[in-house]
Amino acid sequence: LTTQSPPAADDGAGATPARIDEVNRAAAELVCSAQPVLVDIRPARDVVPGLDDTTILTSGAPLPWDEYTGGQRTAVIGGALFEGLASDADEADARLRSGEIRVAGCHDFGCVGSLAGITTASMPVLVVEDAGRGTRGYCTLFEGRSPSRLNYGVYNHEVRTTLLYLERVVAPLLSDAVRRTGGVPLRLIIRRALHMGDELHSRNTAGSLLFSRELFPAFVALAREGRYEVDEVIEYMSSGDYFFLRASMAAAKVTMDGIAGTEGSTLVTAMALSCREFAIRVAGLGDEWFRGPLPHMEGGSLFDGFGPDDIEFMGGESPITETAGLGGFAQAAAFPLQAYQGGTAERMVELNLEMYDITVAEHTEFKIPYLGYRGVPVGIDIRRVVESGITPIMDIGIAGRGGGQIGAGAFRAPMECFTAALDAFERRTPEAAAPAASSV
Amino acid sequence: LTTQSPPAADDGAGATPARIDEVNRAAAELVCSAQPVLVDIRPARDVVPGLDDTTILTSGAPLPWDEYTGGQRTAVIGGALFEGLASDADEADARLRSGEIRVAGCHDFGCVGSLAGITTASMPVLVVEDAGRGTRGYCTLFEGRSPSRLNYGVYNHEVRTTLLYLERVVAPLLSDAVRRTGGVPLRLIIRRALHMGDELHSRNTAGSLLFSRELFPAFVALAREGRYEVDEVIEYMSSGDYFFLRASMAAAKVTMDGIAGTEGSTLVTAMALSCREFAIRVAGLGDEWFRGPLPHMEGGSLFDGFGPDDIEFMGGESPITETAGLGGFAQAAAFPLQAYQGGTAERMVELNLEMYDITVAEHTEFKIPYLGYRGVPVGIDIRRVVESGITPIMDIGIAGRGGGQIGAGAFRAPMECFTAALDAFERRTPEAAAPAASSV
Repeated sequence: LTTQSPPAADDGAGATPARIDEVNRAAAELVCSAQPVLVDIRPARDVVPGLDDTTILTSGAPLPWDEYTGGQRTAVIGGALFEGLASDADEADARLRSGEIRVAGCHDFGCVGSLAGITTASMPVLVVEDAGRGTRGYCTLFEGRSPSRLNYGVYNHEVRTTLLYLERVVAPLLSDAVRRTGGVPLRLIIRRALHMGDELHSRNTAGSLLFSRELFPAFVALAREGRYEVDEVIEYMSSGDYFFLRASMAAAKVTMDGIAGTEGSTLVTAMALSCREFAIRVAGLGDEWFRGPLPHMEGGSLFDGFGPDDIEFMGGESPITETAGLGGFAQAAAFPLQAYQGGTAERMVELNLEMYDITVAEHTEFKIPYLGYRGVPVGIDIRRVVESGITPIMDIGIAGRGGGQIGAGAFRAPMECFTAALDAFERRTPEAAAPAASSV
Repeated sequence: LTTQSPPAADDGAGATPARIDEVNRAAAELVCSAQPVLVDIRPARDVVPGLDDTTILTSGAPLPWDEYTGGQRTAVIGGALFEGLASDADEADARLRSGEIRVAGCHDFGCVGSLAGITTASMPVLVVEDAGRGTRGYCTLFEGRSPSRLNYGVYNHEVRTTLLYLERVVAPLLSDAVRRTGGVPLRLIIRRALHMGDELHSRNTAGSLLFSRELFPAFVALAREGRYEVDEVIEYMSSGDYFFLRASMAAAKVTMDGIAGTEGSTLVTAMALSCREFAIRVAGLGDEWFRGPLPHMEGGSLFDGFGPDDIEFMGGESPITETAGLGGFAQAAAFPLQAYQGGTAERMVELNLEMYDITVAEHTEFKIPYLGYRGVPVGIDIRRVVESGITPIMDIGIAGRGGGQIGAGAFRAPMECFTAALDAFERRTPEAAAPAASSV
């Protein structure tokens, strides 16, 4: 790790804007050189450090239990019931209130959560390791195409059955297939998927296919050994084209954690929603969350029968993909998204180009064919965000009141998080309070 | 067939330009409604009507044997040797000259050939059936990634071994897998692949993956039954990302044959190269080829170490894909092609848009995400080509002197074929000699 660490900004020279630029550039290089590999699929309790049987992880900057509302509250209670920590919702609520059951943020455990992001001890997680650094990121499995999903704020018999199925059937076979394959390098899949219409957040069609292909030989071998569940697991992985999002999220998490804690860096390392807030973390500001209001929908498309009043925020940490240069930051690679979340190709290109104004580097490996194979914009600099007035754009799945997905859209992060973070950074390193360099 | 046939142009009203437009529109609707399904992979002799053991099919408007030169000549001789029709090249040449061995054009047998397009009795072909009409198109299998391939003008021990491997190992297993799957509908794969960066001529990365996924459950079942070649066939299908081109070609062939012979139609039904000529067929002009010079390279990219003087034409019928609205006519769906055949995204869009000027319809099923899901331009009207001065653009693999692929590029069809065809059409139906309608 020592040789790969970026220079700290306060090693004598003082945190001048130029020095911060230098630290940020070195951090962005680390982001570009990350080598995320899916090494296993394991129950969270076996692999996530510190996750005990009475903890329910959920998305976003943590809130006191009483502040969780709507679908996210339902989902946390569902997680507790799924783990057998209470016999019904009222009992779960009482134990969550008393602290017998603990609610915590995914990000503090090396995890990232999709929508409500419920992660509990028995749930299988994708284990993604940075091959260079040995660090790990985790994300639960895609729940399948049913509108009833725990992470979309629903817990009922169907959801429970699906979760048990993932735990008992899908995860053990996938684990065997992944280990037999010797791990699946995700960097190459992400690179190729960007050339096949994915931006690896709201579109993962190619990523899911490429990932499945990597496991085919192992599946065939397992089938020969009498594993009859191979067929249904293949069916599960083919359904919905969203399997790979979770791998992309865990890859982005382990990548961005690689620069978390970089002294003197103004780069964003996480962006996440709870049901009430949007929040960011900054490399040079440790684990602190800088909170703001929920993001604004810039454009989107709701499924038939739903209107804007039906939208409900239930949390979401998939913007870790944008933090790493994917999703909205790579949307000019994914024009097919128009069919899913509205917009036009022209507008997607405009929005994508804007993101170069708030980042410090272009990815050396992940490229956008339409932009002449320009690298995706990477390394969101809070100084550039505040200076330009441009905040990150994120491709997000939309949940509806009462639970379930009702659409998808492009959302704009709130400026408040970035100004709050920059204030904190400048309080900490007053020399930094000068204009940021205007170009990379 | 009767109910689907377009109205003939000379049924009393005379072949006026407006009447021709009407016939062409009906023909274009037939093109859009074709339902190509891969139903089997069989030795050509078992399925290609009229193909006997002493016939060698090759690409392009047929030439007298002595006019085949270079790689295409080598390939025809290679086909004869592969079939055991002669003991060496000189003997094969003598028998080809005497007519003991017959050379014929792929298109006359329902086949289309890649590059030199050699198709002989024992070679396995993809059998693609139009589910609506029951008609069939055929194309041989991808020879794999080796630069030494029969269709790139090489015949040696390695090529022979590959061809035998396709015949003895790959084709029988694929046949079993395809039949067990109940046929693979290609229309859906082509539609999805256009949303994943393919144009289905020079880029088939997504098509090949999507196709493999369709067969995967059958492969697993066959593996359980002790078919140990499953692993190597999966490996073959994953190599090179070009497997699907042959399916795309056969699908385009059966689609365009659906309007061949449409009395009074000025739509192109085939475009093909031999080593000496480019040639087209027109729906209302039967099987006649209208010949012109070889196409002009508009832009392209040669592999390291090769220059323009190394390029050699060896034939090629893959422009059947452009004839059906794919390839160069769908290049704005395939910006990743820049990395393979040069150019810029802007130029690809310009070229793609030009093709709307020479076609009579937009495909109702095959769409281009970047163009706001506009249907691909389909139904090349020889009148529009001559009037606009714009000829079709085609994405083509480039062969080199001495054999092998040396690059890929965008080529422009020669105007001469279109003027010759229009002259013939007007001689046949003098009422047609008025300006074409200027819009669809």
